[in-house]
Amino acid sequence: MDKKEAQVMEWTTVVAQKVIALVELTKKVLIVYAHQSSASFSAAAKDAAVEVLTAQGCTVEVSDLYAMNFKATATAEDIKGDVKNAENFRYLEETRLAFEEGKLSDDITKEQSKLTEADLVIFQFPMYWFSVPAIMKGWIDRVLTSGFAFSKEKRYSQGVFKDKKAMLSFTTGSLESMFSSTGINGDMNVTLWPLQNGILHYCGFQVVAPQVFWAPSCATPEARSCMLEGWRTRLQGLLEEKPLSFIALDCFDDKAFQLKPDVHKEHDSKEFGLTVGIHLGKPLPPHSQMKAGC
Amino acid sequence: MDKKEAQVMEWTTVVAQKVIALVELTKKVLIVYAHQSSASFSAAAKDAAVEVLTAQGCTVEVSDLYAMNFKATATAEDIKGDVKNAENFRYLEETRLAFEEGKLSDDITKEQSKLTEADLVIFQFPMYWFSVPAIMKGWIDRVLTSGFAFSKEKRYSQGVFKDKKAMLSFTTGSLESMFSSTGINGDMNVTLWPLQNGILHYCGFQVVAPQVFWAPSCATPEARSCMLEGWRTRLQGLLEEKPLSFIALDCFDDKAFQLKPDVHKEHDSKEFGLTVGIHLGKPLPPHSQMKAGC
Repeated sequence: MDKKEAQVMEWTTVVAQKVIALVELTKKVLIVYAHQSSASFSAAAKDAAVEVLTAQGCTVEVSDLYAMNFKATATAEDIKGDVKNAENFRYLEETRLAFEEGKLSDDITKEQSKLTEADLVIFQFPMYWFSVPAIMKGWIDRVLTSGFAFSKEKRYSQGVFKDKKAMLSFTTGSLESMFSSTGINGDMNVTLWPLQNGILHYCGFQVVAPQVFWAPSCATPEARSCMLEGWRTRLQGLLEEKPLSFIALDCFDDKAFQLKPDVHKEHDSKEFGLTVGIHLGKPLPPHSQMKAGC
Repeated sequence: MDKKEAQVMEWTTVVAQKVIALVELTKKVLIVYAHQSSASFSAAAKDAAVEVLTAQGCTVEVSDLYAMNFKATATAEDIKGDVKNAENFRYLEETRLAFEEGKLSDDITKEQSKLTEADLVIFQFPMYWFSVPAIMKGWIDRVLTSGFAFSKEKRYSQGVFKDKKAMLSFTTGSLESMFSSTGINGDMNVTLWPLQNGILHYCGFQVVAPQVFWAPSCATPEARSCMLEGWRTRLQGLLEEKPLSFIALDCFDDKAFQLKPDVHKEHDSKEFGLTVGIHLGKPLPPHSQMKAGC
């Protein structure tokens, strides 16, 4: 090898190393998005996330559920070939088996691959009836297959996705005051518990505080722009945000899954419950489903 | 008219009156049912409800969502003909208009007719991810149209369906201990709040205590029979059960929808919050989403 060849070799190695480093550094983001119209506020919020995160060097993938005509209902068609027990079809068991045997339908495995790749998942949607729209619930019901997204051993703080982050980003029809502990719809922290604890944290995700766009349809164009600007600013540091607090799995016994007596005792003198759901009969910890460090 | 004719006339009148009285007395029940298999525990629970309520003289209608291949996703196809704003399609507004103009799709209007007729609605389902399966969320998102099921004035205790009752009847995958305020999944009362307050009570329904079948898939055949027997017994008196407690709409002001100062003050000295969501920073009222009179 002459000097010139050696030089080229060296440069090539350096470039290759940099490419590898860049790939490793590049965070992957999956946006699961549910709105029918590309002119909606939800679409603008999704677009802002794509733009800001891409500019930061992230690879951003969007699952646009309505555009994909994503199948929402959990049926035997989600399994390729024969099911194990057609007479007494049980979706949870059948899809766990199908996952193990590589027999889940292609639309499910495609979403599972995106999820496996992702470091952060953002669910962007308009709140429908205190929850996600049915098409997004369908994504949750069908993609988060037993065996893939959780098992009896791997859930909550020991969950399959414990090295990933996830968050809800949504619009409401109601004003913020209505979703308080003295407002007509009740505390938003309560409404978010089944979604953030029961789905996201259940699968192990570190749950980043939700982005709530309060009633954009009632707001002026200036106020809507302001909401989006706030979201763009937040997106700059989103990947470094600390997640919400939940209770570690080993705080519970492994039979009845009750809080261990020593953990319970340790919190006896505390003013607030541990979380919204695991409240021990005490007042709920304020803002714990809305802000990190609460 | 001779004596014989008069006699016939009298009998006819009596029979007609009895028929009218019977029709008026006959309660109508709608069961919105979501399970893929007729051999499931959920199917058995649904069948028990049909049988016991029919035997009581009720007219029972079942919407078997999977069998109907019920469309779960909220799209522009739910509206017959042109939508008002195709570029910026907003489901809530478009379906409200379509309802007013009689342009909602036939599958939606059919369910709305059943709902209008019903005195009691039972939602029978296996709990998926701390909530209803997507196909049932789709029924909720699509059938409970703005204008039909609620308006700004007609909601909560003044809701459209305030003379009807509704209840959740569902199976869980988890044991009861896991869904407590010291259990790993947290208090079931919290998990039920978005469904029972945010959907059922929002539309005005008097919410009857839920029927929870704890982990039938983990139970022995004897224990499952016992659960069904308990349900059959409960069904005998179901129509006379007192509903769960919620807060009357006029306890809130009509601008920010905050609890009025006098109502708030009245509860200052009380040990517990008013409801799970409107908890005033106090401990949650125990069992309030699970039992009437709590």
